[in-house]
Amino acid sequence: MTKKKKYFKKFLIGIDLGGTNVYMVLVDTKGKIYAEKHFPTLAEKGPDFVIDNIILELKNLVNTNGYSIKDIWRIGIGSPGPLDSKKGIVYGAVNLPGWKYVKLKEKVQKATEIKTAVDNDANCAIYGEKWLGAGKKYNNIIGLTLGTGIGGGIIINGKLIRGINYNAGEIGHMSLNPDGILCKCKGKGCFEQYASASAIANIAKEKIRQGKKSIITEIVKGDLNKITSKVVYEGLLANDELAKEIWNEFIKYLATGIRNILHIFNPEVVIIAGGVINAGEKLFVPLREAVKKQTFEIIYNAAKIVPASLSERAGAIGAAGLVLFEGDFYGV
Amino acid sequence: MTKKKKYFKKFLIGIDLGGTNVYMVLVDTKGKIYAEKHFPTLAEKGPDFVIDNIILELKNLVNTNGYSIKDIWRIGIGSPGPLDSKKGIVYGAVNLPGWKYVKLKEKVQKATEIKTAVDNDANCAIYGEKWLGAGKKYNNIIGLTLGTGIGGGIIINGKLIRGINYNAGEIGHMSLNPDGILCKCKGKGCFEQYASASAIANIAKEKIRQGKKSIITEIVKGDLNKITSKVVYEGLLANDELAKEIWNEFIKYLATGIRNILHIFNPEVVIIAGGVINAGEKLFVPLREAVKKQTFEIIYNAAKIVPASLSERAGAIGAAGLVLFEGDFYGV
Repeated sequence: MTKKKKYFKKFLIGIDLGGTNVYMVLVDTKGKIYAEKHFPTLAEKGPDFVIDNIILELKNLVNTNGYSIKDIWRIGIGSPGPLDSKKGIVYGAVNLPGWKYVKLKEKVQKATEIKTAVDNDANCAIYGEKWLGAGKKYNNIIGLTLGTGIGGGIIINGKLIRGINYNAGEIGHMSLNPDGILCKCKGKGCFEQYASASAIANIAKEKIRQGKKSIITEIVKGDLNKITSKVVYEGLLANDELAKEIWNEFIKYLATGIRNILHIFNPEVVIIAGGVINAGEKLFVPLREAVKKQTFEIIYNAAKIVPASLSERAGAIGAAGLVLFEGDFYGV
Repeated sequence: MTKKKKYFKKFLIGIDLGGTNVYMVLVDTKGKIYAEKHFPTLAEKGPDFVIDNIILELKNLVNTNGYSIKDIWRIGIGSPGPLDSKKGIVYGAVNLPGWKYVKLKEKVQKATEIKTAVDNDANCAIYGEKWLGAGKKYNNIIGLTLGTGIGGGIIINGKLIRGINYNAGEIGHMSLNPDGILCKCKGKGCFEQYASASAIANIAKEKIRQGKKSIITEIVKGDLNKITSKVVYEGLLANDELAKEIWNEFIKYLATGIRNILHIFNPEVVIIAGGVINAGEKLFVPLREAVKKQTFEIIYNAAKIVPASLSERAGAIGAAGLVLFEGDFYGV
C-alpha cells in the first residue's frame, strides 16, 4: 500500500466468477468480512447477462447490508482464463459459453464507476489463502486446487508470479510422464490427469468399466457417471480394494507433483484446496510421508503441506486482496 | 543499485569454484571484462588450501594486469552447494572433499579485506547469462545447465528466486516419472536421470552392455567407460541407429522438462548451457518442435529456447553480477 492512496471508501468487493456459481464478499481493507453471498452464474445466458447480473447482485449485497455503493473503494474479480490480467480482458473460458475477448474490467468499471481488477481464479484463490487463510503467516506459497483440473498459484516474496503474459502457474500441465495419459491440452502425462478430483473419478470409472469389482458400483447404484472423487473416498472408508488402489495412486502422483514444486521453489508452504481435502488425515498423512521420501531434507523440512482454509470463498476474498495489495499492477 | 553506494573502486572479481577448475574474471561495473583466467581447483588438498590458492590467484590476476587489490570493490563467488547464500557458508559439496560448513565468505573477506558474496554455481551461471550473455534482453529467465546433473537457475522480474532457505532451482530433481530411474537423491524419475550429459552417456553404456550394436563402441575402442554425451553425438552424426534412439529419447525428456518449466513460469526465455549445446541445430530444432507440440500456444509463443553464450565463464561473470546487483541480499 503506497502512501499516495487513501482509503476514503472503506470496502472492497471480491468476486469469484465460476462456471456454475458466483461467490461475492464485502470486505474491508483489514480483511474483515461484512457480508457474502453466492448465486448461480447462469453462464448459458452469455457474458452480457452474466456481467449485468453480477452488478445487480453486487448492488444488492451492498444495499441489503445497509451500505451504499459509494462506500466501495475497489472491485476485484477472479475469472477462469486465459485472460490478460493487466487489461482485465477474458480471452475465453471453457465453462463460460460465449466468452471471447470479454472486456470484463472495463464493463464492470463503467457500470459501477468503481475501479476494478480482474485476475485468474487460481491466482485469486491462493491470494485469498495468503491474505486471510492457511497462508497468512507465509510469503512463499504454492497453491494447488484439485478440481476438474489442477489450478496452480505461486506467491514468492509475497507477490504473485504471473509470467510474461500472465499465464504462469499452470502446474496442472506439468507432465509427470512423457508417455502418460493424453491430456486435452495435447500434452501427455499432465499432473491433472492423475491427481485432480476428476482424475480420481475417471480412473475409477475406467477400472470398473474394465471389469474391476468394487463397492463404488453399489454406491452409485450402477450408474458409473455418478462416480466422483467423493464416492471413491467413501469406498476407501469402506475398505474397498479398488478404492484403496486408486487412492494410493492418486497420492503417489500428488506427492510427485508436490515434490517437484518443492525442488523448484523451496517454498514455505504448499496449500491444497478442493473438496478432496475433506479427506483430512487420510490424505495428508500418507501424502507428507510420500513427499518426504523423495525430497531433499533441507527443502522438505522448510515446507509445510496443508489444506486450504477458506473453501469456496477463497477466490472472492483473494480477488479483493489482490486489488487492495497489488493495485499498481492492474493500474487501479 | 541504490544511491547510497558509490563505486569508488572500479572492479569486481567474479569466481566460479568448480570441482575441477576455478574460473576467475576481472570485470568492471558495466560488465567490461579486463582479464580472466582458470586454474585447477586441486580440490583434493582440502578447503583451506583451495581458498588460499584462490586468493593468491586473485591477487596475481589483479597485479599482472597492472591493477591493485585496492581497485577491487567486491568479490562474488559461485560455489557448489548446498550452501547458505545469505551467510556465505558452504554446507558441503560432492566434488569438494572436506568441505563441511566452510565459511567461505568470511574467509575470503578476511584475507582480502574486500566484501564478498557467495551463491550457488547454477544461480551464478544463469545470472551471468542475464548480465552479459544470452539473457541480456530478458528479465524472466530459466537456466538449465546439462552436465553431470541438471542445474537450474530462475530469474523472475530480474531477480533470482532463491527459496526460503536458498535451495530453489533444483530443476534437475523434478520427477518426470514416479516409477522411473532411481536417482541418487532417492527420488524416482528425476529430470537429470534422462536429460543431463551424464544421462546420455549412461543410457548409451547400459544399452551397449545389454548387447546393442553401435558405432559408439568403435569410437571408444571398446572401452565403454569412455562413452560421453559427445561420443553419442558423434554416433548421431555418423547416422548410428542406437545413437539416434538415445538422442531422440534425450530430446523427448528435455522437451518434457522444458514444457513443465514453461507452464509453471511462463518465462521469456529458457537458456540451456553445457557442452551438449554444441550440437546446435541437431539439438535445438527438434527440441523446439517437441516443446511446441505439448505447450499452450500463448505460453510457447512468448518463450525463446536458446543456447547459453558465455560457456565456462558464465558462473564467474554471474558471481560478479550478483554481488553488484543483489548486494543488498548478501549484506555487502
